[in-house]
Amino acid sequence: MTQFINSKETLVTDAIDGLLETSGGKLTRLDGYPHIKVVCRADWDKKNVALISGGGSGHEPAHAGFVGAGMLTAAVCGEVFASPSVDAVLAGILAVTGDAGCLLIVKNYTGDRLNFGLAAERARAFGLNVSMVVVDDDIALPDLPQPRGVAGTLFVHKIAGAMAQAGDSLEGITAAASSAIANMASIGKSLDTCTVPGSAKEDRIAPGMAELGLGIHGEAGVEQVAFKDAKNAMDLVLQKLAPKIADEPHVAILNNLGSTTPLEMSVLAHELATSERARNIKRIIGPAPMMTSLDMHGFSVSVLPIDKKTTARLEDPVDIPAWSGMSEIAPVRVSPLPDGLSPIQPIPSKNETTRKLISQCCSLLTSSEKELNLLDAKSGDGDTGSTLATAARALNSALDRLPLADPTQLFRAVGNELSQTMGGSSGVILAIFFGATGDACASGKPVAKALLAGLERISQVGGAVKGDRTMIDALEPALQALPSGIVAAAKAARDGADATARIGRAKAGRASYVPEENLIGHNDPGAEAVARLFEGLAQAG
Amino acid sequence: MTQFINSKETLVTDAIDGLLETSGGKLTRLDGYPHIKVVCRADWDKKNVALISGGGSGHEPAHAGFVGAGMLTAAVCGEVFASPSVDAVLAGILAVTGDAGCLLIVKNYTGDRLNFGLAAERARAFGLNVSMVVVDDDIALPDLPQPRGVAGTLFVHKIAGAMAQAGDSLEGITAAASSAIANMASIGKSLDTCTVPGSAKEDRIAPGMAELGLGIHGEAGVEQVAFKDAKNAMDLVLQKLAPKIADEPHVAILNNLGSTTPLEMSVLAHELATSERARNIKRIIGPAPMMTSLDMHGFSVSVLPIDKKTTARLEDPVDIPAWSGMSEIAPVRVSPLPDGLSPIQPIPSKNETTRKLISQCCSLLTSSEKELNLLDAKSGDGDTGSTLATAARALNSALDRLPLADPTQLFRAVGNELSQTMGGSSGVILAIFFGATGDACASGKPVAKALLAGLERISQVGGAVKGDRTMIDALEPALQALPSGIVAAAKAARDGADATARIGRAKAGRASYVPEENLIGHNDPGAEAVARLFEGLAQAG
Repeated sequence: MTQFINSKETLVTDAIDGLLETSGGKLTRLDGYPHIKVVCRADWDKKNVALISGGGSGHEPAHAGFVGAGMLTAAVCGEVFASPSVDAVLAGILAVTGDAGCLLIVKNYTGDRLNFGLAAERARAFGLNVSMVVVDDDIALPDLPQPRGVAGTLFVHKIAGAMAQAGDSLEGITAAASSAIANMASIGKSLDTCTVPGSAKEDRIAPGMAELGLGIHGEAGVEQVAFKDAKNAMDLVLQKLAPKIADEPHVAILNNLGSTTPLEMSVLAHELATSERARNIKRIIGPAPMMTSLDMHGFSVSVLPIDKKTTARLEDPVDIPAWSGMSEIAPVRVSPLPDGLSPIQPIPSKNETTRKLISQCCSLLTSSEKELNLLDAKSGDGDTGSTLATAARALNSALDRLPLADPTQLFRAVGNELSQTMGGSSGVILAIFFGATGDACASGKPVAKALLAGLERISQVGGAVKGDRTMIDALEPALQALPSGIVAAAKAARDGADATARIGRAKAGRASYVPEENLIGHNDPGAEAVARLFEGLAQAG
Repeated sequence: MTQFINSKETLVTDAIDGLLETSGGKLTRLDGYPHIKVVCRADWDKKNVALISGGGSGHEPAHAGFVGAGMLTAAVCGEVFASPSVDAVLAGILAVTGDAGCLLIVKNYTGDRLNFGLAAERARAFGLNVSMVVVDDDIALPDLPQPRGVAGTLFVHKIAGAMAQAGDSLEGITAAASSAIANMASIGKSLDTCTVPGSAKEDRIAPGMAELGLGIHGEAGVEQVAFKDAKNAMDLVLQKLAPKIADEPHVAILNNLGSTTPLEMSVLAHELATSERARNIKRIIGPAPMMTSLDMHGFSVSVLPIDKKTTARLEDPVDIPAWSGMSEIAPVRVSPLPDGLSPIQPIPSKNETTRKLISQCCSLLTSSEKELNLLDAKSGDGDTGSTLATAARALNSALDRLPLADPTQLFRAVGNELSQTMGGSSGVILAIFFGATGDACASGKPVAKALLAGLERISQVGGAVKGDRTMIDALEPALQALPSGIVAAAKAARDGADATARIGRAKAGRASYVPEENLIGHNDPGAEAVARLFEGLAQAG
């Protein structure tokens, strides 16, 4: 499978350099590429206990992404899914450890235990005070004497990080880390395996199946189960964790194993937050990718009981983007809908001139139905005439309800009527046009200027301008000419509409998908409707 | 494709609820599911300008993930890739807009423009002060009069957010947002399309190919290009952006379009940070998923020129986990390797008794080579005897270099010799054993106690304890009996070694993968080696 890498050999060093280059100077690394890949805090002064974690790469942001004040002092990175060497770990220890000593936080894999363990031994020979904890939080295989270390490691990073930052002793930090490790539990679930760079992907999980209790290196899960839905997936995970969750407050890490979308992770968070099995889980870290397995489409849940001290340590703010922070889980807060969603019903009023004008317009549009449909068939789906005629008939029958004596309210009311009867984008565009015209009337503009303000608004919202082969090509010149009288406006509208027959490329609306040869020689039906409207009004005097 | 959702119909509402439940009470939503999906700040007091964004879902964390102090006031969410309704947008505007007014930040898609535009019109009829900006940052299609709005939208969220938080006016914020929009440019690249829930995935991009300039709804890219490597992929993207990057400082958003791994994103960040084409890009937001396209395996780069004011607004810290913050791009800082990576070379010293003892041990191991290999063939790869004999020969030939008169230094030196000559995990384990024994001598323990301390350390690091069918089964009883003399120790070692033949399940080391029937009746070769060593020393007196 293609991936955004340069080569398998340079993958980890390229990625570390990218992390450093975009860290704003907060991170540095030791010399010694490609063998020694150690990321350190750039501002480290060795005054407090140093915290070092690491292991194979492919679990980003773990561990280098969690280096920073309040979490790790350094991360020792191996190649993808491979433990770093003793020398690399020792280099990390020697680089960051001062008089306060150093804690190694190691996930329970033989290679990591041995390499970190021997490096610690060597460092002790230099007189350094080094202790080591081994995280073994995975409960997938209940009988395994050596459970794997997975996302629960993040609890240790954060708890130990807050303590080290506060100046606690190596003994105190080691004890707190060990106690957290003894009390935590994690399990993962995935819909697919991961893609190891340079290797073919193992097609182990059939579509529609999911694996429960799988490792973070693509190790097969304890069981394959049929995937039902997100609720069931979370329930099976919580069922496994339930025996480990005593009746006291817990925090959970909801970890994205790689390529699960934020949308899916939020759905899983919802299932966790609302599950009866998770009633003792009061706080959550994530959902976020924290301990990934390359591009695995899965998630894991880690739980830890929390007292006041642990809560404070996990809550302690850090400036590390990969750390999502911890939140209390709380029911959804729903605010009532605001008043005013139904359009303001105007108070009807009378004005015979206005009533006659609107009626005329409606008749003109109704009588053009067939011709406009025929024109629209050249460039669209042949319904412009019917859409306008239907709207015109509806508007005509609404005349008694309209505030005919008040131009501001009338334009707004016409806009509302049209948006309700026309549907589609034409209805929305005309509703915006008449609404904005009403707004302009309210601010004291004369009708012709107000109509131009309405036009400007639909250009802004709809994006079309004159020359784009829309009704604007007739409406804009007509409104500009309107102060000189209706006859001038009608002529301007006609010229504008006829000019659309020479525009071969529509730049807005549905006609923009139609080839040029189907457009040339035919007027745009919207512009034609506008021209017929103004011509009709001019003839009627 | 299977996804962690419950149903297509409840996907967006489930996800919004999950976001709210894990927001620590910072977010609320309006009533009106499933039609109205509006996420709002829970602490909003309507004193400053309200900022509303939104559009179709599937781009998470955009937009609901960016609701919070200093960014958005509310997000109006549609179904996946579908614009929210006019009513939903209006509800959002009415819910959060006070006297300071409201800015709608809309991506340039017809549905969004029209629905947000009409909602704005309706809200104005209520006397609210509403303005709207349309983000059209995508440069994929240079001739398109209506460029799409993509990840550059985040610049607007943050700049407007900082200004609104500072109490700026709607006019000032709208002007700054419009100016940012006019100056920004974005383009995306992907190795695969996205999976729309409930639809089959379009297999448009062949393996080994990439699409440049594609949309965030799975719209096809402007061109398909052969994928070479990450450097080339980033270079093609920067090549497209280059004409838009004037010779002044810029900031870039490096956006994960969905399922690109953090490792790949860091490699792409490295390529951006080191590209000559990006020399004017001085700051970076991300790499992070900000404006995704479901599970698309791609990335996008957005650029914006920055002056002092814009920098300050983008830098202004916010407590929104999805916002990764902005960092200066800087070359990798490399720290020199610490001294001490080569083990301390001890000063050789003489002690005839010790020399004779070590020499005896080496002979005993060398002479057991064949038998131990045969034993190991029952449960392993038959090389325990050879591994130990090789190490013994090397140690014997190193006698002149060893600090024979100083137990502390001697044990450490033996550990170093063994780790260098033995290799593999046995070498590491023995190195840890002798190193820790040396540490214990240094702290004043007598040799027998010091050896027990070494044993304790390898149990801690390697995870094996007595009864796990390892050399510990012979070594631990022997060392415990050692104060009573070498004969007692030899008997204890022999009893321990023989007892391993009755242990059917190894709990550590390679034998843990071997079936019971292959183990029962045969001593563990490591334990047998220890027993032979002590027996030999006892016979020699």
